[in-house]
Amino acid sequence: MPSKILTFDRIVDRLISLARPWFSNYLAMYSSWYGGIVVDPALMMVPLDDHLVHRGDGVFEAFLCRDWNIYMLDRHLARLDLSASALGLDIPEDRARLLEIIRDTIRAGNSGTCLVRLFASRGPGGFSANPYESAETQLYVIATAFQPLPPEKYEKGVRLATSTIPAKTDFATIKSCNYLLNVLMKKEARDAGADYPVSVDENGFLAEGATENIGIVTRDGRFLIPRFRRILRGITVTRAVELAETLLGREITGIAEADITREQAFEAAEMLVMGTSIHVLPVVEYDGKKIGNGRPGPVFRRLLDLFSRDETKNTEVLTAVA
Amino acid sequence: MPSKILTFDRIVDRLISLARPWFSNYLAMYSSWYGGIVVDPALMMVPLDDHLVHRGDGVFEAFLCRDWNIYMLDRHLARLDLSASALGLDIPEDRARLLEIIRDTIRAGNSGTCLVRLFASRGPGGFSANPYESAETQLYVIATAFQPLPPEKYEKGVRLATSTIPAKTDFATIKSCNYLLNVLMKKEARDAGADYPVSVDENGFLAEGATENIGIVTRDGRFLIPRFRRILRGITVTRAVELAETLLGREITGIAEADITREQAFEAAEMLVMGTSIHVLPVVEYDGKKIGNGRPGPVFRRLLDLFSRDETKNTEVLTAVA
Repeated sequence: MPSKILTFDRIVDRLISLARPWFSNYLAMYSSWYGGIVVDPALMMVPLDDHLVHRGDGVFEAFLCRDWNIYMLDRHLARLDLSASALGLDIPEDRARLLEIIRDTIRAGNSGTCLVRLFASRGPGGFSANPYESAETQLYVIATAFQPLPPEKYEKGVRLATSTIPAKTDFATIKSCNYLLNVLMKKEARDAGADYPVSVDENGFLAEGATENIGIVTRDGRFLIPRFRRILRGITVTRAVELAETLLGREITGIAEADITREQAFEAAEMLVMGTSIHVLPVVEYDGKKIGNGRPGPVFRRLLDLFSRDETKNTEVLTAVA
Repeated sequence: MPSKILTFDRIVDRLISLARPWFSNYLAMYSSWYGGIVVDPALMMVPLDDHLVHRGDGVFEAFLCRDWNIYMLDRHLARLDLSASALGLDIPEDRARLLEIIRDTIRAGNSGTCLVRLFASRGPGGFSANPYESAETQLYVIATAFQPLPPEKYEKGVRLATSTIPAKTDFATIKSCNYLLNVLMKKEARDAGADYPVSVDENGFLAEGATENIGIVTRDGRFLIPRFRRILRGITVTRAVELAETLLGREITGIAEADITREQAFEAAEMLVMGTSIHVLPVVEYDGKKIGNGRPGPVFRRLLDLFSRDETKNTEVLTAVA
């Protein structure tokens, strides 16, 4: 059966009637290509010729808004600038306008608690690898429903598995839209029945998760995170290190970036996964081995508590939407 | 000024009136998401939540159709299968239907000579890195006007520049939509006033271009191409090697995959760039140094001639559209 040529009106009819179960999660999208915000999920589209689509030529950030306050937005936007400049990509709006667009998008979504993703792209103009055929960089901001993990993940802990996929090499320190390696790590962890993957670098040291960082607490109380050599500098792990300073002399004896082997992790008192949408999670099993006593530990509990207070009460790291 | 919330009708109006200079190049697009073919460039869009867009989670091929015959289509589709299977991605159509869609798209574009790009994507469903949230893989096929290079590039030759960007590591042998490194190589070459870039691997051997392969002809007549260790196996370079066999004992004395250094290239009688949209081009200047006598050489001329005959007369490697 030959493929039909669909008229403009036919496409419009199709988009009007289009429905998918996941559409209910999509609250609002700002698109510079549209010049405004759409709330119809079927219209949350981008041009196929945007180099973001066919080359992954763009950068992004994901951040959490809770009760109309965005957590760590300044840091996310600072990292966005770093990523964009690494690619020679101009973000099409200045910081003030960017903030306004983010706020407007969240407001349009009508939900004070949501997950926001911002994409700055090379833009449309053609289908080659040449970025100079893109004359207009684009900005897309989408607010989606925030679906927190089931509470049992925090209460009982999660399972981590070493990825057979080698640690990222190309653009590992940039939050670009070349995330295929991260995707395959996530896929592998899911296929193995684990909650999160972690990669290992060429020297045998733990690197990073698909979209999370990891850390351990040694039996003598040191909170260690992998060195930021060839891994993305996570906003959440960076904040975790800052928050952990208040635990020094009590739950922990020191904080450091370190080369961490799998064997060290197996011997750890605690192991943590950290990321934007989860803050911090306790790893109770790593590659099938019990970590610590197999239950969420005290450093995890204190950090989670610190994050909860930080994201609700610390105006220094909150950006009000209203 | 706050961002406006645009109604469905407002977006439709915008798309109807949308115009860009490059739209005239876009002939027709098949979209599995639309369930058919569109010829309005403003509608050539894909869902923002397709993991192709935000993770580069998709594979692609580009192939040339000339006078209603597609060159090397079988090989391109075979490579597409390899790429997809490396990512655990199911292409949503079988080979027969895929062929039909490609033919229908070209016919809808109404131009027998065009460049076709086919994207198989993980599909929409959410914004995380988890491929399992994508329930429906998608297929997008776009036919664009084929704009051959100015004849002088073939007559006078092109300039090649070594890229400072290291050879690709992640997914180097897969034609995925993680092409940021390729983009930056292209950007760098353009910034330096060169026509094409070439990367060098960690051992100092020439690797590949942004979307092209390279080769040299030594002064004793050997046609050498880089080993396919960590570079994409180009359809065109593979064909060039086959076609070059007819030149053995005449213009060339041997054909081999080899470790090629910059210094060897500087000493070469000829240097070539090979790719889908160009077939073969003569490099007359590499990193500012004259290659051979600084003019297109005999092996280039013979290969270009062989390609021209192959793509017009060799039914074994042609797929008729009509």
